[in-house]
Parts: sequence; structure tokens; C-alpha cells
Amino acid sequence: MPRYKLTIEYDGAGLVGWQRQANGPSVQEAIETALTAITGAAAPIRGAGRTDAGVHAVGQVAHADLARDWRPDVLRDALNAHLRPSRIAIVRAEPVPDTFDARFSAIRRHYLYKIVNRRSPLTLESGRAWLVKRKLDAAAMHEAAQVLVGRHDFSTFRDADCQAASPVRTLERLDVVQQGDVIEIYASARSFLHHQVRSMVGSLEHVGAGKWSREDLRAALEARDRSRCGTVAPAAGLYFLSVDYPEPGSGLPRGEDFSETGAK
Amino acid sequence: MPRYKLTIEYDGAGLVGWQRQANGPSVQEAIETALTAITGAAAPIRGAGRTDAGVHAVGQVAHADLARDWRPDVLRDALNAHLRPSRIAIVRAEPVPDTFDARFSAIRRHYLYKIVNRRSPLTLESGRAWLVKRKLDAAAMHEAAQVLVGRHDFSTFRDADCQAASPVRTLERLDVVQQGDVIEIYASARSFLHHQVRSMVGSLEHVGAGKWSREDLRAALEARDRSRCGTVAPAAGLYFLSVDYPEPGSGLPRGEDFSETGAK
Repeated sequence: MPRYKLTIEYDGAGLVGWQRQANGPSVQEAIETALTAITGAAAPIRGAGRTDAGVHAVGQVAHADLARDWRPDVLRDALNAHLRPSRIAIVRAEPVPDTFDARFSAIRRHYLYKIVNRRSPLTLESGRAWLVKRKLDAAAMHEAAQVLVGRHDFSTFRDADCQAASPVRTLERLDVVQQGDVIEIYASARSFLHHQVRSMVGSLEHVGAGKWSREDLRAALEARDRSRCGTVAPAAGLYFLSVDYPEPGSGLPRGEDFSETGAK
Repeated sequence: MPRYKLTIEYDGAGLVGWQRQANGPSVQEAIETALTAITGAAAPIRGAGRTDAGVHAVGQVAHADLARDWRPDVLRDALNAHLRPSRIAIVRAEPVPDTFDARFSAIRRHYLYKIVNRRSPLTLESGRAWLVKRKLDAAAMHEAAQVLVGRHDFSTFRDADCQAASPVRTLERLDVVQQGDVIEIYASARSFLHHQVRSMVGSLEHVGAGKWSREDLRAALEARDRSRCGTVAPAAGLYFLSVDYPEPGSGLPRGEDFSETGAK
């Protein structure tokens, strides 16, 4: 059966998240329903990251096996027609070898967390950012963030419900960038624990507000204790940006199972 | 009576525009109602640009005369409390001399028009951009846009209902910038005619699609004929970015009446 890679964008507001659930509309269900509508058959998909309710994506990736070949642009347009009026869109559809797995082949996941730092309520960014009213020092946040980069036991920054076998992850990038009253936090890793990005961001907010020092953040990390985490930042500010996969034929290993990744 | 300058942000979706109208919620009415609620008196405001229904602002400016002095941050926060749950926010309140007039003192207005150029429907940008599905050449659009820069009779790019005394305006900047599938068009001028930005953008879209050459755009401008305008681009892609005023004491003249400016 030919396999297709789908690159997916969605507005997380009003969605229960990526994963199919009984209590509301999920991205997975919407796309599987659209696939069934156009192919006439059940078509389970697997995503690169299981984003939570309210989390957005501009480059989520999933794969599906279809009964016959499709022209990629026709597949994309047909799926988008069936996805209306949801705020879920297939940005790209591509045929891939059947060794490609959206989740297990991923070698790097990229997230953006967006803070608006001001007193005034959000208008255009409502539901799209975390409004922090106390003044934050973004440079101090960036400096402290470097404490978290590298291979660590991230138990402090892991949701109690996280099902990952190990709390150890390798954080490749955690950059804090300020533009006017917007603070953007970029996080990259092969995989993340459940709520890891939002837990790190909530703790960095304490640093930005001067409530925590860089050493307080380090101590929280080293404590490996969930109760030492700062606030968990709200879902609305989180964007699943993109997923890296090995170049075909590059000889890179297929990914291990980091199934607890996702957005988090 | 002390005069205050208000810098205002709003999501244009669901609003009838800046100006008070009988048929729905306007920015002007929302802010005047909030001012009356906190001051107990009628408080008419005047804005720098009369944006149309669906047009957004991140830096609209208005002024109001109040019966007593207010701490600017208290005024801002009190107005924002009363503006809930509308998607209108006072970003800044500042005391200004009573010679300051949000409309007549303005020396430059800046707009952004946002196009998303792709086949897939909008999700996060729904109501925030113009989705153009045919492939556009942004470099060709930028090159052709320079034909419009300068002092011209913009009758071609002016709404039939425009009440300006003269169709002559001086366009200071019209830059077309591409980032991925987003095309941003920046327009700056002392003032604009009604629907001028959206009319220029709609015509530039014809250039980007290869339907019009740069010379076709020039001929349309020189015809001074509304029927030669391209499509008027939809309101949802337009953002009123900011307004420039003379520095206090700079000796620059106060602006003339360009009351037909606005968004346009």
C-alpha cells in the first residue's frame, strides 16, 4: 500500500488535541474521517507529536497507508475539502517509502512558545500566546535556559501523567528571543517529555520575573522532582513548528520509539 | 481639559470598523462607552484612521479630552477592564498637549497587508490574511509597486465612495517582502484614499500572477479611472500598524486635514 507523509497545520483552539478522544474534536479523528471519506476505507494515521488541547501546529507530520496511488496535490486538496470548516489543513502530501514512520523516524522536533509581555489584554493574539503582565527580562531567561540544554534527567519538567520509560532527554536548543513585547522561546530536541516545553517555559517565566535565578533553575533541574517545577505555561502559546527526518539514503538510523514525545 | 493619546489594537473580525455605526459594534463606540463608564461623562474620541469592517490595527491612535488628570497606566487599565470581552485593547495612554490631534497632527501612516500564497486553506491565519491560491511572483510585485511610489493622482485606486477633496497622494513606501508562503506588503504615506491600500494590493496580485505587467500597472495608474483597478483585496489581510507624529517642539507643521485617510 502506498504510504503518504502529510504535513499539517492547525489552530488548537477548540480542539481536544492531536489524539482521538471521546470528549471532543481531535486532529487525528478529523483527518482519519477525511481520509475515509475520499478513499472509502479506514485509514489510521500516526503523528509525530501528540499535541495537547489548545496547542497549535504549523508543521505537524503524520503518515497514512492508502489503497492506491494518489497525485499528492489531489490528495492534499481532497483532504482539505473534507476538513472544512475545521481549522485543520493539510499543507503538503508526499509519497514516502514504507520505511518512513512519522513518529519513529523523526530525528528532531521543533517547538515555539510565544509570550506577549504587557499589561493590556490580547486581541489578535488571543488564544495564540501567553499574556504575562509582569515585566520579564528576556536576556536573563535566555541565559538561564542554557542550563537546560544538553542531556539531562528532566523529571522536574515532566507531567505526572507522562508515560515515557525514561525521564532523560537531550535538549538541543532553548533560545529566548525578544521582539518588542513578544518573547519567543524556541525548543528543539529529538523528543520531549509530556508537558516538557510548557514546564520549562513556566519556569523560565519565574527567571524572567526575577523570582528565580539561573542557579534556582539549575537546582530545580537537578532536584529531579516535579514539585520543583515552576508554573506550567498555558497551551495557547505553544506551536509545533516542524519535524526533521533523515535524508533518504543518508544511512542515519531510523528513530527509536520516543512515543511520549509531542506537545507537551 | 487634559488630553490623552490612546494607542489601540484590535482584531477587526466581527467589528463594523473604526467609525460608530448603527449596524454593529465599532471601535469608536466601544472606547467611547468605556470612557463614559469610567469618567461619568460623554467623551468623544477622534482616530487617526477610519478602518473598515474586518481591518485590524496594532497601532491605531485616537485622542480624548477628559475632565480630570489620570495616571496613564490607570487610565489604560480601567479602559481595558471596560472593553472586555471585546477584542479591542488600549496598548498605551499618554498625556499630550491640547495641540495634539490624532487625525490632523499625523504626518505618516503605516499599513501592512498580509497575503498567504498557497493552495491549502488558512487555519491560524483565518480572518487575518488573504489566501491567494495561484502562485505569485513577489519580486515582480515589489518591482512593479515602485511605479506607485511618489506623488500621483490615485483615482484608479480610490473607492467610488471616497470623500477626499483630492485624489492626489504621496506614497512614500510600497514594499513587497516574501517569507515562505507569506507575502507582506508595507505601505506608508501621510494619508491614503479610501480603499487605496487594498486597491493597490489587489492590482499587485494581478502582477504577481503574471496577468499584469509593470507597465500595465503604470497604465492603470495613469488612466485615473476606477474601472482600471484590479480586484480590491479583502479587508481581513489589512493591518493599521502605526502613525507618526512630529516630535514635540520639532517645529514641524501640524498636519493638514487628511480626514479621508484610514483603512482603506
